[in-house]
Amino acid sequence: MIKPVSDLARRIGHNFSDESLFELALTHRSCGKKNNERLEFLGDSILNFVIADDLFARFPSAKEGELSRLRARMVKGVTLSEVARELGLGDYLRLGSGELKSGGYRRDSILADAVEAIIGAIYLDSDMETARSYILSWFDERLKNLDMNESLKDSKTRLQEFLQSRRLPLPTYDLIKVEGEAHAQTFYIECQVQGVDKAPKGTGSSRRQAEQEAAKSALIALQVEK
Amino acid sequence: MIKPVSDLARRIGHNFSDESLFELALTHRSCGKKNNERLEFLGDSILNFVIADDLFARFPSAKEGELSRLRARMVKGVTLSEVARELGLGDYLRLGSGELKSGGYRRDSILADAVEAIIGAIYLDSDMETARSYILSWFDERLKNLDMNESLKDSKTRLQEFLQSRRLPLPTYDLIKVEGEAHAQTFYIECQVQGVDKAPKGTGSSRRQAEQEAAKSALIALQVEK
Repeated sequence: MIKPVSDLARRIGHNFSDESLFELALTHRSCGKKNNERLEFLGDSILNFVIADDLFARFPSAKEGELSRLRARMVKGVTLSEVARELGLGDYLRLGSGELKSGGYRRDSILADAVEAIIGAIYLDSDMETARSYILSWFDERLKNLDMNESLKDSKTRLQEFLQSRRLPLPTYDLIKVEGEAHAQTFYIECQVQGVDKAPKGTGSSRRQAEQEAAKSALIALQVEK
Repeated sequence: MIKPVSDLARRIGHNFSDESLFELALTHRSCGKKNNERLEFLGDSILNFVIADDLFARFPSAKEGELSRLRARMVKGVTLSEVARELGLGDYLRLGSGELKSGGYRRDSILADAVEAIIGAIYLDSDMETARSYILSWFDERLKNLDMNESLKDSKTRLQEFLQSRRLPLPTYDLIKVEGEAHAQTFYIECQVQGVDKAPKGTGSSRRQAEQEAAKSALIALQVEK
């Protein structure tokens, strides 16, 4: 049963002057042409700015690369779908009949996109400062808990920790081939990981480096990172 | 001779309450630890939002994918370095001795980064609305001239048009290898293009598709697109 969006608006705490905009933000493309993809495009850019601005002030001595990594962790699909669950969006999504039963990663990504679309809708319905205050209230705890060192962990470690947190089996790394002469070899690695049909690949000038690249591809394929 | 930043501030039309912020925005990392990279990170997110917001309103029937492509053309390095030249930034850049003579793509990318850093500096010195009005004045003509059809051109066409506009030789596409059985082949293409040392590669299930992918890689390697 799909619940009326006015309930959710009340829960989020925003009084939409145009509630149809909020309904649009919850409408997946499986419903047809009028859907939340344009709002998601807009909301994504607002979220990226608000988090960038917050991190810039929060970590005055962090370098650009560190800020980028920290932001990537805040705006990645897994984090956004967590926010969606905390807001209880699931019951309010407008989905086409084919999507109603979709579960797992597919549903997570629909939830994550809806969070961005809602940010776009709040901005259009009010202004940047209002959108900013909602975003910061949803991300407050996560921003406080950010540990700069976390973002420096390598890809294999991050993949392993993600799988362990979901009680999934650990990945295996298979050496597919080695090319080139001894002093300039290229290693080709495939990563076998549950939940990804087409094995993520990595290449590098050492086996270790190729494995890291394969782990990075796996994290992207799992939509844990961008 | 490096000119004083106050001249440039006057030309841009912004009266910085903290001119050292503006000077920082013009300071390349080759000068040392205090450089414009953090401001660039912040300014990039502001630019992305302002352009997204403008395109959202300007093209009410464009789909999310079209809006993304149009924005990518606005915020890509080549466009930003054009903006930098129009603002006359070149004479005001603070570069380390190693970078002073750098030319071509290298210099273009330093100029493009400085534009983003200046956006970040203006925002910190004032507010989002002020930053927005500068961005829109710098991009006004380009936004008006945007043609949605342009963004639908394929990568090979865009690469050819870019090279022709610079009077550079056209690229060649070499088939490196074909793998797999007749019904499921993978084609490997390398694109030879002036200005890129390591030939951009593309793979695909047809030769045409692999060439398009190689052209896309070439556009990225040339910093024409992201």
